[in-house]
Amino acid sequence: MSTSAAVRRGRGRRPAAEVRAEVLAAAGRILLEDGLTAVTFERVAKEAGASKTTLYKWWPSPGALAAEAYFAQSQPLLVFPDSGDVRADLIAQLTSFVRLLTAGGAAGPVSQLIGAAQLDPDLARAWSETYALPRRELGRERLRVAQEQGQLRQDVDLDIMVDQLWGACYHRLLVLRVPLEESVVEPLVDQALRGAARHSA
Amino acid sequence: MSTSAAVRRGRGRRPAAEVRAEVLAAAGRILLEDGLTAVTFERVAKEAGASKTTLYKWWPSPGALAAEAYFAQSQPLLVFPDSGDVRADLIAQLTSFVRLLTAGGAAGPVSQLIGAAQLDPDLARAWSETYALPRRELGRERLRVAQEQGQLRQDVDLDIMVDQLWGACYHRLLVLRVPLEESVVEPLVDQALRGAARHSA
Repeated sequence: MSTSAAVRRGRGRRPAAEVRAEVLAAAGRILLEDGLTAVTFERVAKEAGASKTTLYKWWPSPGALAAEAYFAQSQPLLVFPDSGDVRADLIAQLTSFVRLLTAGGAAGPVSQLIGAAQLDPDLARAWSETYALPRRELGRERLRVAQEQGQLRQDVDLDIMVDQLWGACYHRLLVLRVPLEESVVEPLVDQALRGAARHSA
Repeated sequence: MSTSAAVRRGRGRRPAAEVRAEVLAAAGRILLEDGLTAVTFERVAKEAGASKTTLYKWWPSPGALAAEAYFAQSQPLLVFPDSGDVRADLIAQLTSFVRLLTAGGAAGPVSQLIGAAQLDPDLARAWSETYALPRRELGRERLRVAQEQGQLRQDVDLDIMVDQLWGACYHRLLVLRVPLEESVVEPLVDQALRGAARHSA
């Protein structure tokens, strides 16, 4: 038995959840460092010490793996604080989000993922189900708490508020393709909270 | 001389602006009917009665042509009314925009265009320069008039307002990939104008 086979067999005994976490970590690292096209089952399997067969069993495509890996990778960075002050918490979370895209180098890989999803229905499904919709739910949940605490009006549509905050950032990233800057976050949150009209209608 | 050559030569005498308009109309029609991959120089040249050489001279790629064609095609539909009431005008324009994407069948082609732009720097440039940034300028201009008329506060960032209104729609279209509905427009505009906070800060 060669050493690497021994290592593989040894690793093969790891619990599935552990293997899964290592595969996601490897895929996320490759995605952020080398972009979407670098995320192949072969390279991920090699770097995570897992078998390609396992990857084929768990993910329908490398793109689907990349989408889930990005969720796992960004999860600790994009957590929603709850200080009791919704304005401060939105500014903190959106600043982390913009920072991940800019200084964190995620703008390119994320644009590629969302771009490829527009051309590939399977990746589109994986992206929505394993990243975009779960993240929306996290945002909605923080806003719901603020609404229950009376910081947001009862008639505010929380889905629309999510669209207005994070959608504004994605608009610059994907549609306008202009630089995203952290300095946009505070006026963005304030405008969403205060509105733009001179007199409230 | 064959008939088709005679036709081509006859058409060759049309003013360049006229040829350009017909090429854009043909490309826009093909884009909306058959999607981005159907927009080839060969098919567009044939349907517009123009020469492929002309198309190669005027556009760096079929994608760049498709982006400009979509701007030309959507221009009459997405015009900004100015009734003096910014709320009514935003609702009218955004309703036309959402209707173009849904009933007008543009959601697929536009998603493909923006998606492909994330993977192709030349198309990205063409999309920004010939569609996204000119459209932002049109929106900004309408909001600027409203600001001058005192309907919007002086400290409102109009770029952010554009991001919050149209970006919200693109967020559902591209990122969440959930159905866009006309019924979202009115609460979206009202929330942008009134804000979400219970008490204005």
